[in-house]
Amino acid sequence: MPEASLTVAELSESQLLERIFPRLTGRPGSAGHLLLGPGDDAAIVAAPDGRTVLSIDTQVVDQDFRLEWNNGYRSSGYDVGWKAAAQNLSDINAMGARATSLVVSLTMPPETLVSWVEDFADGLMAGITGLGADACAVAGGDLGRGRELAVSVAILGTLEGREPVLRSGARPGDTVALAGTVGRAAAGLALLESDVPVADLTAGQRALMDIQCRPQPPLAAGPLAREAGASAMMDISDGLVRDGNRLAAASHTVLNLDAAALKELAVALLPASELLGADPLSWVLGGGEDHGLLATFPPEVQLPPGFTAIGSVEAPAPTGSTGVTIAGSPADALGWDHFAD
Amino acid sequence: MPEASLTVAELSESQLLERIFPRLTGRPGSAGHLLLGPGDDAAIVAAPDGRTVLSIDTQVVDQDFRLEWNNGYRSSGYDVGWKAAAQNLSDINAMGARATSLVVSLTMPPETLVSWVEDFADGLMAGITGLGADACAVAGGDLGRGRELAVSVAILGTLEGREPVLRSGARPGDTVALAGTVGRAAAGLALLESDVPVADLTAGQRALMDIQCRPQPPLAAGPLAREAGASAMMDISDGLVRDGNRLAAASHTVLNLDAAALKELAVALLPASELLGADPLSWVLGGGEDHGLLATFPPEVQLPPGFTAIGSVEAPAPTGSTGVTIAGSPADALGWDHFAD
Repeated sequence: MPEASLTVAELSESQLLERIFPRLTGRPGSAGHLLLGPGDDAAIVAAPDGRTVLSIDTQVVDQDFRLEWNNGYRSSGYDVGWKAAAQNLSDINAMGARATSLVVSLTMPPETLVSWVEDFADGLMAGITGLGADACAVAGGDLGRGRELAVSVAILGTLEGREPVLRSGARPGDTVALAGTVGRAAAGLALLESDVPVADLTAGQRALMDIQCRPQPPLAAGPLAREAGASAMMDISDGLVRDGNRLAAASHTVLNLDAAALKELAVALLPASELLGADPLSWVLGGGEDHGLLATFPPEVQLPPGFTAIGSVEAPAPTGSTGVTIAGSPADALGWDHFAD
Repeated sequence: MPEASLTVAELSESQLLERIFPRLTGRPGSAGHLLLGPGDDAAIVAAPDGRTVLSIDTQVVDQDFRLEWNNGYRSSGYDVGWKAAAQNLSDINAMGARATSLVVSLTMPPETLVSWVEDFADGLMAGITGLGADACAVAGGDLGRGRELAVSVAILGTLEGREPVLRSGARPGDTVALAGTVGRAAAGLALLESDVPVADLTAGQRALMDIQCRPQPPLAAGPLAREAGASAMMDISDGLVRDGNRLAAASHTVLNLDAAALKELAVALLPASELLGADPLSWVLGGGEDHGLLATFPPEVQLPPGFTAIGSVEAPAPTGSTGVTIAGSPADALGWDHFAD
């Protein structure tokens, strides 16, 4: 059986694990928090301050990622692994915490190539280290069969003895700020779903596509925001307006965004919007998956490196509702919802 | 839209979460380890001794459970929720730890009934409390769409300042012991897949079916074994021989099982084996999913309540291999593997 065409159906689970674990473990730095790694019924991870931050997220083929896109691009296992790492690391970042470990569960159709799984493992690891989460070890996982490809990652983090930054702490007068990017993954998605062949794209357009396939959440920014005294924070996974509405609701406030600042954010999307005849502002307001950080800071706080002011927190009108406004007018509830269309 | 026919496609993710979270949280006891529950980007869970035990497991429809069985039984959302809880709680139990929290990710086709999801949540919660894991809180989760139903649970546990019981600690002269049951879930599976209608089954046969659908792992036994000084432990999820081979390999030993003890374990399976003309011993040796505990104890240790001696640990012959033997003869490597058939 040639190695290149070997499928997961031709290996036992333990044979497959033997091929994957060496790609995920034994890195310098990973020993820090991992007290017991793969091979037993469960792993053991250090929780230095007696607490652990915990999140889980699942990505399903053709819902959360595609393997083949309309424009001809094929997402590799590496892309899927990177995206799984990025998305989950971002949830820990959004609390102002640092990731200590993750466990990954991969569900695969039997015809999945072993080389694809190895590429997935490499991408997962590259995402962890490439995004700067060097203290995050892969503590274990689970491989199983299914009709469709799906990846679940559960991730742990440490607050290093500090308090988490919640969604509920924004107060009128605070500055609304953004770290990382917004709208680029959505612009990249539009390119991937367009009829323009990959080969015809410019480097700038390719870069937007890359953000959709391998997001770059600003992992240094979460702990920096916590240390600077951010009053509220969350990651933007479903869109600036939709996620902003959630933060505003949790804080019983209005997030009034600055129209000029939003327009500035749209500039980076012009390579895609001009090609496709799209409105870049709709990507800025409605696009998720860049996993930028939306945070609020008390007025006396100097914004930490990486954050840009994009608006201010206001009290809702006596009879008005919480939510996102742009220059005082309600923003549409754009963004991605998993069920409602 | 009548409530009974409401599908998840007709609700937004947040509307669906609003229906589920009240069923999962606010229980007495759940506050103990849960420092921050659902609603932010991540939960925060106490890790009192500065460590957390961590595992993840995914169950996929028609791979790990069925919704409709050959004999006419229909697994409810409650069954699927219970089984997800049981399977994951067992991994923590197998380390000698107690579960503190879990997060659950549910992937569903759009036509899934909301009532099914509510039933799932009730079953998950009932599994946690019904199995005695009262200190385990549901810390959060994730709902998403997919073509096939799948449940991923990540679970955390505490060792309460003690050392974990690993697979690698068995030593020649130790007693091999079992807590909980073995083979019943396999016997139940054979009944579910048979042509004998549910209505024709006896109470004893139904009880075996119930173990397949709602396993009863012995959660008190794990911490008791740790406190008594067990030298090695794991849960039996893939079969006594297959999992025993793993423990034996990790410990570089042979687990020599007692034929009379195995025959004794088969007695409980007679209601199914006599009906179906099957060999009950094959279920004892090859059946997983009861999630009983396989442990070894130094000879001077009195077995804690719930454990029964079923054999002894021996050194491998100078040129022989590790693994499970029965009265000195190699056992066949029966059991379930996710990929190889």
